[in-house]
Amino acid sequence: MKFQPPKGTRDLFPEDAEKLQKIIEIIRPVFEKYGFRELVTPSFESFELLSKKSGEAIKNEIYYFKDKSDRELGLRFELTASFARILASNPNLSKPFKRFEIGKVWRYDNPQAMRWREFWQADIDIAGSSSPLADVECLAAVCECLEKLGFKDFFIRLNNRKLLQSIFKNFVEANAVADVFRTIDKLDKIGEEGVNNELKKKNIDPKKILEFIKISGSNQEIIKRLKKFECEGLDEIMQALDYAKGFEIDKKIKLDLSLIRGLDYYTGLVYEVFLGAGLSCGGGGRYDKLVESVGGNPTPMTGISLGLERILELMKNKKMFEEDNKTKAFVANVNEKVKNDAIKIANQLRKEGINCQIDLMNRSLGKQLEYADNVQIPFVLIVGEKEVKNKKFKLKDMKKKIEKEMSLEKIIKTIA
Amino acid sequence: MKFQPPKGTRDLFPEDAEKLQKIIEIIRPVFEKYGFRELVTPSFESFELLSKKSGEAIKNEIYYFKDKSDRELGLRFELTASFARILASNPNLSKPFKRFEIGKVWRYDNPQAMRWREFWQADIDIAGSSSPLADVECLAAVCECLEKLGFKDFFIRLNNRKLLQSIFKNFVEANAVADVFRTIDKLDKIGEEGVNNELKKKNIDPKKILEFIKISGSNQEIIKRLKKFECEGLDEIMQALDYAKGFEIDKKIKLDLSLIRGLDYYTGLVYEVFLGAGLSCGGGGRYDKLVESVGGNPTPMTGISLGLERILELMKNKKMFEEDNKTKAFVANVNEKVKNDAIKIANQLRKEGINCQIDLMNRSLGKQLEYADNVQIPFVLIVGEKEVKNKKFKLKDMKKKIEKEMSLEKIIKTIA
Repeated sequence: MKFQPPKGTRDLFPEDAEKLQKIIEIIRPVFEKYGFRELVTPSFESFELLSKKSGEAIKNEIYYFKDKSDRELGLRFELTASFARILASNPNLSKPFKRFEIGKVWRYDNPQAMRWREFWQADIDIAGSSSPLADVECLAAVCECLEKLGFKDFFIRLNNRKLLQSIFKNFVEANAVADVFRTIDKLDKIGEEGVNNELKKKNIDPKKILEFIKISGSNQEIIKRLKKFECEGLDEIMQALDYAKGFEIDKKIKLDLSLIRGLDYYTGLVYEVFLGAGLSCGGGGRYDKLVESVGGNPTPMTGISLGLERILELMKNKKMFEEDNKTKAFVANVNEKVKNDAIKIANQLRKEGINCQIDLMNRSLGKQLEYADNVQIPFVLIVGEKEVKNKKFKLKDMKKKIEKEMSLEKIIKTIA
Repeated sequence: MKFQPPKGTRDLFPEDAEKLQKIIEIIRPVFEKYGFRELVTPSFESFELLSKKSGEAIKNEIYYFKDKSDRELGLRFELTASFARILASNPNLSKPFKRFEIGKVWRYDNPQAMRWREFWQADIDIAGSSSPLADVECLAAVCECLEKLGFKDFFIRLNNRKLLQSIFKNFVEANAVADVFRTIDKLDKIGEEGVNNELKKKNIDPKKILEFIKISGSNQEIIKRLKKFECEGLDEIMQALDYAKGFEIDKKIKLDLSLIRGLDYYTGLVYEVFLGAGLSCGGGGRYDKLVESVGGNPTPMTGISLGLERILELMKNKKMFEEDNKTKAFVANVNEKVKNDAIKIANQLRKEGINCQIDLMNRSLGKQLEYADNVQIPFVLIVGEKEVKNKKFKLKDMKKKIEKEMSLEKIIKTIA
């Protein structure tokens, strides 16, 4: 009998857990730079709340359960529902209320490559502002995160669902627009041909729709084309691109009229973040109706969610992490008599900010060196009776395979 | 219709979330100093695994549920079961394997003051070492955490269940020892009188037992008394106290023969951490049988768990946190024409490491100042057309209620 992590979940061993932590340590201060403040919300919410956002059918896609008092609950499948709940029940929060949250979410998906049932999201959202500036500030924060993480080729696709809505109403019945959205949303998966066929099946003429969403060129070229249509929401796009210049992220933004961002609840600008062609790591958009739908005052909302697994795995593949062991030294003792001396020396190293280990296994010196080598600790300091007396210790550089006797002071300098 | 967090859970608003994060930012590097490395394990585990540790009855005390394939799962109620699982299924991990994990756990308790159904634990554990040195190193890391957090009066109660076992076997039938443990474990709750009565009810003579667990005095005095008994495990206590001297934490450790630490699975040294008299914030001990019980090789284990809510709430009560807003400045614009100038200035401040906000609401200057005041941002920088031309801006100190015109360079210096 051996136990495994539950299906679709995984353990992050130190090599990966430290990399995830590194990512979080880079993005958290960026979020704070832009004035986002952290919220920590429960990992499960009432199913009623979750279904307000995504419909009853979400039950099949999440971890749904009842507690011992038959309360219907669900593990959160994203971080926005909790945020909307907080806004609904705290109408007096000063606006804009800018929050970030970083945490695990759960979905009852079929596990695939880079897709787990338990995964990490980092979200920033702004409540209270209907200005495209709020959207762009979220994008600016995300751009800075990705830059700080070391990405260069990232870009953001931008669209406005208001614009599509106003255009498509000329092509199809008003009540068919949502259906058109659902089909276009599959473009990346099923291709143009697939979209064409699916629309036909729905008795919708695909020609004009496909022509429209395929309008391409530079942002300025696309805008020039759009100006010929009578459409809503173009002004928001133009404003967004103008603000993007202020943030110096305009070159990172690509207008893409085929971008839908699935979830029905988006009401305006939508965006998706790509780490490279075809490599999405998150997205978001404006969702001005959500807070009202969970019982709050009408509150314009916008935000963006990053999938940290995607970022982690890509950074690993591209070897974007410095490979270094956080434990810098092993303080070996030649026998039990000098154990407390070794402990005291480890204390001193730790006081100087050097992460180190001592022998906890009563091992011989040889075995201690073997362990240090196995777990790739770069330096071993050897403590014997003579060494304690002379206050000079051998320091072994495990990579260079050299050792040298020196004072503790010198050792600390060498390791640091 | 307004939604609340599910019963027994709560939202941490920025004021608290940032404090929790501060605690984690202080303890994580301390754990790493001692060579503990981070693991991230799933938030739920198979119920079978969870019950191996704590028995079938745990079902009533946790969030138990089935997934859509009828797998029996449970939200983790502590972090050790996952760690034991990893050791069992990875027998080749180099030992000692020292890990920490910081995360949420869930219990289906009755919510009380300072007790939630969802709460945070920070655990360090060492796998592979049966030496009391491993126990003491965990204690040393915890002591350093508490010191770094600013606590002064903390202390650790230490006992050895082996010692109690060997002594109590002289007082009661061998199979009654566990029963005696369970009763003594309630000492803090029901008092000496309560323990006396409960033991009598179980047909156990309380006299010698109570006499024994009440042995008091300095650690050395208690050891002197213990030496007169024939008992096991005294050597481990003495070794632990000796090692504690090396770590300079011996004065923080108080032998306490009444300490049991509930959970049946502890096999040797046990410890509990107090932030002050009566204020426990965690504990732990040695549990050498757990890995075997979940299908692994026999593996000596020891570790300690800190309850972060306890630490957070006490630190708040004692005003141990510096009250400062992470957002240092608000870059106000007098009108929309200078919006992009304000954005650019905010960019520059952010590049200099100054967290700041801009107006996202198209507010008048007066309203912008009001917002900055409401959310307690200490400085407001005012951007108008003249200011942009002259490259000098008014900086308003919101606390001191003074304003001064200066260059951006000077402003950055003043804020930082």
